[in-house]
Amino acid sequence: MAHDERGVTPQSEDFSAWYNELVIKAQLVDRGPAKGTMVIRPYGYALWELLQADLDARIKATGHQNAYFPMLIPESYLNREAEHVEGFSPELAVVTHAGGKQLEEPLVVRPTSETVIGEMMAKWISSHRDLPLLLNQWANVVRWELRPRMFLRTTEFLWQEGHTAHADEADAMAETMLALRMYRDVAYEVAAIPVVPGEKTPGERFAGAVKTFTIEGMMRDGRALQAGTSHYMGTNFARAFEITYTSADGKAELCHTTSWGMSTRMIGGVIMTHGDDKGLVLPPRLAPYQVVIVPIGRGERGEAATRAAKDLAARLRDAGLRVHVDDRSQLSPGFRFNDWEMRGVPIRLELGPRDLEAGTVVMARRLGEGKESISLEGAPGILPGVLEEFQAFLLKRATEFRDSRTATVDSWGEFVEAVATGWARAFHCGRPFCEDDIKAETAATPRCVPLEAEEESGRCVRCGMPSEYGKRVIFGRAY
Amino acid sequence: MAHDERGVTPQSEDFSAWYNELVIKAQLVDRGPAKGTMVIRPYGYALWELLQADLDARIKATGHQNAYFPMLIPESYLNREAEHVEGFSPELAVVTHAGGKQLEEPLVVRPTSETVIGEMMAKWISSHRDLPLLLNQWANVVRWELRPRMFLRTTEFLWQEGHTAHADEADAMAETMLALRMYRDVAYEVAAIPVVPGEKTPGERFAGAVKTFTIEGMMRDGRALQAGTSHYMGTNFARAFEITYTSADGKAELCHTTSWGMSTRMIGGVIMTHGDDKGLVLPPRLAPYQVVIVPIGRGERGEAATRAAKDLAARLRDAGLRVHVDDRSQLSPGFRFNDWEMRGVPIRLELGPRDLEAGTVVMARRLGEGKESISLEGAPGILPGVLEEFQAFLLKRATEFRDSRTATVDSWGEFVEAVATGWARAFHCGRPFCEDDIKAETAATPRCVPLEAEEESGRCVRCGMPSEYGKRVIFGRAY
Repeated sequence: MAHDERGVTPQSEDFSAWYNELVIKAQLVDRGPAKGTMVIRPYGYALWELLQADLDARIKATGHQNAYFPMLIPESYLNREAEHVEGFSPELAVVTHAGGKQLEEPLVVRPTSETVIGEMMAKWISSHRDLPLLLNQWANVVRWELRPRMFLRTTEFLWQEGHTAHADEADAMAETMLALRMYRDVAYEVAAIPVVPGEKTPGERFAGAVKTFTIEGMMRDGRALQAGTSHYMGTNFARAFEITYTSADGKAELCHTTSWGMSTRMIGGVIMTHGDDKGLVLPPRLAPYQVVIVPIGRGERGEAATRAAKDLAARLRDAGLRVHVDDRSQLSPGFRFNDWEMRGVPIRLELGPRDLEAGTVVMARRLGEGKESISLEGAPGILPGVLEEFQAFLLKRATEFRDSRTATVDSWGEFVEAVATGWARAFHCGRPFCEDDIKAETAATPRCVPLEAEEESGRCVRCGMPSEYGKRVIFGRAY
Repeated sequence: MAHDERGVTPQSEDFSAWYNELVIKAQLVDRGPAKGTMVIRPYGYALWELLQADLDARIKATGHQNAYFPMLIPESYLNREAEHVEGFSPELAVVTHAGGKQLEEPLVVRPTSETVIGEMMAKWISSHRDLPLLLNQWANVVRWELRPRMFLRTTEFLWQEGHTAHADEADAMAETMLALRMYRDVAYEVAAIPVVPGEKTPGERFAGAVKTFTIEGMMRDGRALQAGTSHYMGTNFARAFEITYTSADGKAELCHTTSWGMSTRMIGGVIMTHGDDKGLVLPPRLAPYQVVIVPIGRGERGEAATRAAKDLAARLRDAGLRVHVDDRSQLSPGFRFNDWEMRGVPIRLELGPRDLEAGTVVMARRLGEGKESISLEGAPGILPGVLEEFQAFLLKRATEFRDSRTATVDSWGEFVEAVATGWARAFHCGRPFCEDDIKAETAATPRCVPLEAEEESGRCVRCGMPSEYGKRVIFGRAY
């Protein structure tokens, strides 16, 4: 590798290498011992905790309750819903021995929890008064991956999975859309990712779902990342697990269920939406440290700078900011500056003896605008606003990037060109083999039928047949 | 069962039956499909979240950082520390197949994470400047249980596990005691359990530890519950995983490590420390609902009461309380009163049409003092104090109970009598076979050598040999 030990391969040279090097060097993760597993290091886990706290508050505010279901599920449970078992079988990890003996029935490590939660819902629901039942679980899940990639596809990952049961389709569909809206809002407001919410085409649905909705983000290499999904299951799981209720007029009815999940994959989305050749760029709302203060100077003057940095940090924390003082005096200031740029801290403050004398501190934003000197005294009043601006700037920049890489196309030639660097908005006939055909030739897949797109119809960009869905579909290569 | 469908077997009749029925009927948990697993229902999980939030804040305030390590650990890792593997082998769940194939090396589901974290520590630590390394993980673990019991021993449970590495024994021992102190404080201040902190005798140590410390609580049947442990590992794991650092004067040195854990078992401790024949009694700091308001009355007057209850609930929430309005008008007031008594809510407020007219509400504490009428207007000012008093009352009552069931004994006859209903404080010779002998005859084991006991020595209560430890040991039957 030509790049120095601290730097990373430029995005333009090899986006994959950039990503793989960065997640390790920024100390977000490390490789776990078993194939495809990851260790989430404190810096990466702090990011996850911030995302989790925000999403958990939204989940609770909309009336859901957290619970916890066993990780080990009897293999027979998965077999009860035919499409579900077909979808997940190739990815299962199976416990065959426990307590020194072979088990009579193998237990699978949950790849998702519809089955075990369905079994419990059947037990807990009897009357229409028990509905809706709105549950959520924060948990680890395991899906064996052939091509693992940190955060994006790891054999074990962390997520939340919402599981709800309702009296009818209308109520279950309203829930499905509420979860999707929640994900959209977290992406926009917290992760600064301008995702497109939409419905998956039938070929891209969750195993066992009637409808699957998604939020799709565009990464800086133009590829799409599915960053959260919400599923309407109809009565498929209710039938398989006998989730029934007695209606107000005394009839036995099947429940309509939903499930929805967002995972540590979202962190991969943050990295690939905002990062650049210098390293991570973290949205302030997810940054473990929003401000890092680097005291500069040697000997007594250095000690005075460190004392002043700690004092400033305390005042910034009182103003509600997450702050770190990097007083590793054995490392040069330049090394420390680069280190925090690599780790994506939104604002760096440099505090040397001359700044101290002048009652100022040098502020460097992670992106744009160069350095500027601000008042040491006034910093707690100024920085919250700078961080808000930075958050807004990231969303705006990502939106402009997404739009600049999205083309509305009506010919195959335009389509091929568009999906080489980004997304194509195109009509499609909706036939699975035509989707397969597009994928074989361009590696692009239908990402979603956007909820907010205008109603229109035309001819399939690939085969010329009349278009399906009543809208253009977004196609792109995906993670 | 002679008891009605809603009630539970009295403690005095069968404490085990009381516990097993209560955890289900109070909707804390349900049985999971796989042997020994539990589903933690929303009411039980809310309790866990409150405990977790409090403990997590203490862990962070003392400089530890959260991280996450893979759940699946190569089997060979456990073999590296001889005592560790010997201790855990009989309890392991093993993944032998994944992704449709037999694995080359089986993976164990973590029973605890010393090994995988040790492996990573070896990678992350190089200089004395990297020490101490203070990590914590919130996770699920699996230990195959022959006699599972909800919360107390389940094949899967939730916990936090702290893992730290230090330059020397003194620093690692200080950390071990800091973690123990944190657990002691959580038990006293949050769970209202007057635990006794102490050291385990060699026969009761954690597999691979040099010293194990514990907090022991006395349950209402007089038995002991180990509610949290903290271990000093010496250099055992550092040697097995090559966790070394270069000292300030350039020498390669082994780290000294610690680990410490508290789990969902603590919830079992809360139930068995405070509960009574009517059901749970929850300490206000852990109660998912600190106050439940039951509106009473039919038709229009009932609706007015419900409106007033919701208004009161909003004002109590503004005062920082966790409040629930039980407006299940299809159920009688008496049924609802019993239900919330069973579920251990500290304060119940009954609000009927006559109360409304008088501008009052009837307050019933979960324990003692009967009902009293308080001002509707003044409730938000009054209730926080009532809850604080209730919290303090539970700790005081549990302390008195513990003391009344603990006897200082110097003869075998007294010892046998004491451990039949509680704890014995006795001298012991410290020899493992003498411990075994006591256990075989009385089912009592040494719970701990209390940190705070006075220094004294005498003759072993069992064999008459000179006493070990320089203190009396607490013996009791344990969960």
